[in-house]
Amino acid sequence: MTAPSTALKFSAIAERIGITERTSLTTHPDLDPEILSVAAVQTAIAGQLSYIEGEKFAPLVATTAASALILPSQQPELQAQATERGIAWLSTADPRLGFARAIALFYTPFRPAPGIHPSAVIDPSATVGHNVSIGAHVVIQAGVIVGNDVCIHPNVVVYPGAAIGDRTVLHANCVIHERSQIGQDCVIHSGAAIGSEGFGFVPTASGWEKMEQSGITVLEDGVEIGCNAAVDRPAVGETRIQRNTKLDNLVHVAHGCAVGQGVAMAAQVGLAGGVKIGNRVILAGQVGVANQATVGDGAIATAQTGVHGNVAPGEIVSGSPAVPYKLYLKASAIYRRLPDMHQALKKLQQQFKG
Amino acid sequence: MTAPSTALKFSAIAERIGITERTSLTTHPDLDPEILSVAAVQTAIAGQLSYIEGEKFAPLVATTAASALILPSQQPELQAQATERGIAWLSTADPRLGFARAIALFYTPFRPAPGIHPSAVIDPSATVGHNVSIGAHVVIQAGVIVGNDVCIHPNVVVYPGAAIGDRTVLHANCVIHERSQIGQDCVIHSGAAIGSEGFGFVPTASGWEKMEQSGITVLEDGVEIGCNAAVDRPAVGETRIQRNTKLDNLVHVAHGCAVGQGVAMAAQVGLAGGVKIGNRVILAGQVGVANQATVGDGAIATAQTGVHGNVAPGEIVSGSPAVPYKLYLKASAIYRRLPDMHQALKKLQQQFKG
Amino acid sequence: MTAPSTALKFSAIAERIGITERTSLTTHPDLDPEILSVAAVQTAIAGQLSYIEGEKFAPLVATTAASALILPSQQPELQAQATERGIAWLSTADPRLGFARAIALFYTPFRPAPGIHPSAVIDPSATVGHNVSIGAHVVIQAGVIVGNDVCIHPNVVVYPGAAIGDRTVLHANCVIHERSQIGQDCVIHSGAAIGSEGFGFVPTASGWEKMEQSGITVLEDGVEIGCNAAVDRPAVGETRIQRNTKLDNLVHVAHGCAVGQGVAMAAQVGLAGGVKIGNRVILAGQVGVANQATVGDGAIATAQTGVHGNVAPGEIVSGSPAVPYKLYLKASAIYRRLPDMHQALKKLQQQFKG
Repeated sequence: MTAPSTALKFSAIAERIGITERTSLTTHPDLDPEILSVAAVQTAIAGQLSYIEGEKFAPLVATTAASALILPSQQPELQAQATERGIAWLSTADPRLGFARAIALFYTPFRPAPGIHPSAVIDPSATVGHNVSIGAHVVIQAGVIVGNDVCIHPNVVVYPGAAIGDRTVLHANCVIHERSQIGQDCVIHSGAAIGSEGFGFVPTASGWEKMEQSGITVLEDGVEIGCNAAVDRPAVGETRIQRNTKLDNLVHVAHGCAVGQGVAMAAQVGLAGGVKIGNRVILAGQVGVANQATVGDGAIATAQTGVHGNVAPGEIVSGSPAVPYKLYLKASAIYRRLPDMHQALKKLQQQFKG
Repeated sequence: MTAPSTALKFSAIAERIGITERTSLTTHPDLDPEILSVAAVQTAIAGQLSYIEGEKFAPLVATTAASALILPSQQPELQAQATERGIAWLSTADPRLGFARAIALFYTPFRPAPGIHPSAVIDPSATVGHNVSIGAHVVIQAGVIVGNDVCIHPNVVVYPGAAIGDRTVLHANCVIHERSQIGQDCVIHSGAAIGSEGFGFVPTASGWEKMEQSGITVLEDGVEIGCNAAVDRPAVGETRIQRNTKLDNLVHVAHGCAVGQGVAMAAQVGLAGGVKIGNRVILAGQVGVANQATVGDGAIATAQTGVHGNVAPGEIVSGSPAVPYKLYLKASAIYRRLPDMHQALKKLQQQFKG
Repeated sequence: MTAPSTALKFSAIAERIGITERTSLTTHPDLDPEILSVAAVQTAIAGQLSYIEGEKFAPLVATTAASALILPSQQPELQAQATERGIAWLSTADPRLGFARAIALFYTPFRPAPGIHPSAVIDPSATVGHNVSIGAHVVIQAGVIVGNDVCIHPNVVVYPGAAIGDRTVLHANCVIHERSQIGQDCVIHSGAAIGSEGFGFVPTASGWEKMEQSGITVLEDGVEIGCNAAVDRPAVGETRIQRNTKLDNLVHVAHGCAVGQGVAMAAQVGLAGGVKIGNRVILAGQVGVANQATVGDGAIATAQTGVHGNVAPGEIVSGSPAVPYKLYLKASAIYRRLPDMHQALKKLQQQFKG
């Protein structure tokens, strides 16, 4: 499934992922299989490396056909079990991170060769760095600045005055609107629209009057934006997403939002206008955040939550409208019993009258 | 509105849709109007064929100007009524299916002529079948396999190593990512992204570390993906959508999901990572399914439902978090009475104290 | 941030926005600063014009560094305060509207020069008006009619038989499907799909059978459609959005919907098939409206509302399933107290038994 790659000795992998705590090699120096590829533990076969994390997957140490495993250092019983089954292993506090690094040893992401396809249309006033890859039918308009080592896949359109930082990747058919500032090491996935016009209309007696969106969208370094997502620019000032923040597919960020560093937003999250999201916030899938709401550093909103007003730093919220997560667990459990409660209450009322 | 077409005798239509049980022609052989086109029953005029299904539309037999109707065989009173009004009719257990087939008699979907537009950029290492239509500005990259009779509309981008099965249609501006396998007779609608990188980031002390998405996305035969939808590929293994499953616009399918056969997902549904959806499941609009959740064969989730954990085969669920549909109906009806319940409870407490 | 522009005297701005009620110039004719640009009140600096609207921002009159303000006529105390601080001001009943017009004085939206890029592929049977701008790699297919002064950004695809009214703007990578009728002065944002196939499948014993979507999508004059939104065409008849209706990003409008005039739908709203939306309706973010539901003129649904059945004209609804807004406020407040209610009820039951 993955691209062909050279086999690696397990010992070499253990060394290269750089976060090993212990390995089976200290006790079984001969147990150093050749690893051909990586796989999920449920489907791994001989010659493959996998990992175990969480209660759901721990029992699979007993049955997996993997030749090697990355195991949690917190569960020495799994290590013993693997040893018994002749599976090579290494342990780490974060097996998923170890596995991520192991994948990278076997997988070379597709990257077009440097060069500018002759069908790309690049305005003479644009500035293009060195070692870039600009695909077929790309359109780069007046005054755009493209950094070094940038990769622009086919059919991307960059409107005038935008800037694309070094090493940033723009996937096919995404659109970067006028004056957007995209940092270094960003990834904009297919079909995403960055810096598009905010939804600015003022109600008047004769209908909606457009408020021009003269601001800009700024994505700082290391930001990723998912497929078919949209990050609008505001009427004045900027919409800003700070460094290393990751947005999944189909996320909407409205005009004037300020999103902190290291934030993760799962698919189909929507931020209304002027929302402020702190650093390291996690918004799960389909969360909505209302106009001008504020979410503090490190807060979490679980899936489908509707946030209004303010969420305190570190708070976990759920439900629509959002309430603290623990309260939500209780209230939603009781919600299931509402018919019973209703009956019980009616009965009490009758008993009391009687 | 529809493209011009030849008129058809009602008797010819009745024969060609192939699911007729009875028609008015047996009792009224002269009642065989020429049908020029098809229309919804509310707007049909003389010369048009329409259909009746459901309580809401049954009364319209009395007023429609349609010249012919497809009627439910279960409601002979509607047939009598149509006969009385001089409307030709045929009856079937599934009028909507009959109407679907009638539409197909009058409507020729747009399909570009075979041929490869000179502006398309096709890598010499790609393999292209016969009788294909490849539109303007299409980009087909290294090693791609395009089957026979495939239709690729303008501005589509196919990344390296993808395979597109026979007769599949890729609408304008969709993107097929590296190594994706798309079956025969699929339709990918405009702007959809298939096989894009899953949202894989591991939290570390220094921020999100990317987990490369080395897996692939597989769409089996007869799958349709709506406009601007996204079906991601996983870190390892595959995201798979089985045959004849249909996804509406703006649906998100995360990395590693396994979706069964004959499933329907309405618009804006979102599946988180590793979700398993059984065969013939129906997910209504804006449903969300959480990480690793499982939905059994034939289950249904009504609109905006939030599914966590497991849904049993055949179960109907609603609400967020999801509960059985019948419970949801009761609980949500009582939700409206919560203020009254709260008052009643307070009164009882006071009475009891007094 | 905005494009450079000429400075304007405050008095000239006051005159040109056309909705001034009073200005500080009548009492302080010398207080007529040169305004270089516009900004939000929190960030405005000397030489900038801003506005004040709402309780949240009123206190900022005391601290803003703006040289001039648009103030609400209803709050004369703010005018006095501004005067005292030497800030020039004008007052109006609708400061946001005034500010919108002020932005337009300083901002020239990007608009490509008229002309047809040589890489655009225009079918010889298409009709193209005068003074159009058609960007690189645009594809315009057979029989399309493009009005005067239309602007089509790069990589747009227009399928056969569509019509684009005068002055309409199609942003990059949007797709206009066959036979769609787009009015004058519309804006279709990047990646949107107009007139795509409705999600029409009839369940049969052997799986989903496609119902061809022979109808069309009609957007009347002044309609705006957000980035990556989708407006499907129906099996028969039309999907219609009436004049001056505005849809935000990622909105889904299914086959056969009828949307009135002056409607606003915020991001990620979804309308199922056959929905009817009255005039001047407002649907906030992530609202879903179920099959065949009807929303009356002037109704409002707050964020994440799930509408089934009918919403009366002028009604405000919230929650999923939707209830009247005032009831929602009460019921959702009590929802937070469900655990307490449950406890209280159990206690009462025990007390009563005892």
